[in-house]
Amino acid sequence: MITAVLLGGGNVAHHLAEAFLASKDIILKQLYARNATSVAKFQHDVSITDDLNLLEEADVYIIAISDDAIGDLSHQLFGNKLVVHTSGSVSMDSLENEGRKGIFYPLQSFSKTKPVDFSEIPICIEAENSKDLELLEKLAYYISPKVYKISSDQRSKLHVAAVFVNNFTNHMYKIGNDICKQYDVPFEVLLPLIKETAAKIEEVSPNEAQTGPAKRNDQETIQRHLNLLDTKQQEIYQLITKSIQNG
Amino acid sequence: MITAVLLGGGNVAHHLAEAFLASKDIILKQLYARNATSVAKFQHDVSITDDLNLLEEADVYIIAISDDAIGDLSHQLFGNKLVVHTSGSVSMDSLENEGRKGIFYPLQSFSKTKPVDFSEIPICIEAENSKDLELLEKLAYYISPKVYKISSDQRSKLHVAAVFVNNFTNHMYKIGNDICKQYDVPFEVLLPLIKETAAKIEEVSPNEAQTGPAKRNDQETIQRHLNLLDTKQQEIYQLITKSIQNG
Repeated sequence: MITAVLLGGGNVAHHLAEAFLASKDIILKQLYARNATSVAKFQHDVSITDDLNLLEEADVYIIAISDDAIGDLSHQLFGNKLVVHTSGSVSMDSLENEGRKGIFYPLQSFSKTKPVDFSEIPICIEAENSKDLELLEKLAYYISPKVYKISSDQRSKLHVAAVFVNNFTNHMYKIGNDICKQYDVPFEVLLPLIKETAAKIEEVSPNEAQTGPAKRNDQETIQRHLNLLDTKQQEIYQLITKSIQNG
Repeated sequence: MITAVLLGGGNVAHHLAEAFLASKDIILKQLYARNATSVAKFQHDVSITDDLNLLEEADVYIIAISDDAIGDLSHQLFGNKLVVHTSGSVSMDSLENEGRKGIFYPLQSFSKTKPVDFSEIPICIEAENSKDLELLEKLAYYISPKVYKISSDQRSKLHVAAVFVNNFTNHMYKIGNDICKQYDVPFEVLLPLIKETAAKIEEVSPNEAQTGPAKRNDQETIQRHLNLLDTKQQEIYQLITKSIQNG
């Protein structure tokens, strides 16, 4: 049994609260949110507070708030507590509590409305001492089979990589959508291709999966494509084509 | 019942042959391939030839070969046949047969080894006359519920859009993979995020789905990310970040 207090009222806090409440091995002792109404949906399941002086005792305090507020909130947590945050891009050193520190980073893109299956979500953990790392590992395995010990240094790199495969990929979808709209073609025609592109690299490496005119160096098609794009789209098309060709 | 002859020995020809053979409404009368061994696996299911003079009669002749060979092969098909090709980027006019022309374009990324579920694949059709379009529509619905009437003009745009959401997206995966390798982080940690990114836009538009430091204009994180990348990766990071910010 691990006892936990969750601090935050956003997407990550919501989904973690649900996962913790659903686990028979985790006791969610309390939810802290500056604005208690943001977590009102949990009021019948767990004690809620907006006062840091009223925090209950727990094995671990999990801060799931925006990156730039983590330092400040952790600074207000006294005693030799284990305090962890859930951010992909903030280092462990940014925690300013006087006690022990760690990371509990679920690597997924969360939205409040969409339900989350934690058994599909990798959790990256880190701690200053091995005993706390063990506790975080146990906690993570209670909600997901995919647990990785990742250093702050590795995590910062992983976060850049995640920007490419998530944010930038989504922008490729956005440009595809723009082109479709412009020529009155339904974007939904592309959805199965998008799904297959993502599914393919579960089996082969992105290098092996690469196809298309850039990979084939099919200059005729590349030129025809460029003629159909606006200046900004052309710039992106050319840069990525060059990058694919340079391997 | 629709009778068809398939011309080609590559991935698309293989998967179409399988789908046609599996349909009770389609009679695959013949497979033509310049190199008959490329379609040898079908030798017990259908007549195979490498001689265009021996083509059998059919309602439709489907050319599934590389883009630059379509004109030449179609030029050798005589009589008032309905000849269609399966390419996303070649116009209907590129068919040089003397008879009727059309398009039968399954919009998906095929590989020979991976089985294909045609019920998930959009088929884009086009024909010179409405009767042929009707026949192609019927044929398409025999193997997929997702059938779209798309003009050659629209199809060429759809093909550029497909390059963005497939080829360029895969290159984002590749860069993510490079970063992970460089810092000894397992790329598999990112696979659930990749899957979720693709799944998300089945429910919301790419515009609504956009998150990340570029979208938030989080200059601190952007700068930290740039410091972790090599020159080529930086160039791509900066251009896409700019493009996201320009909406």
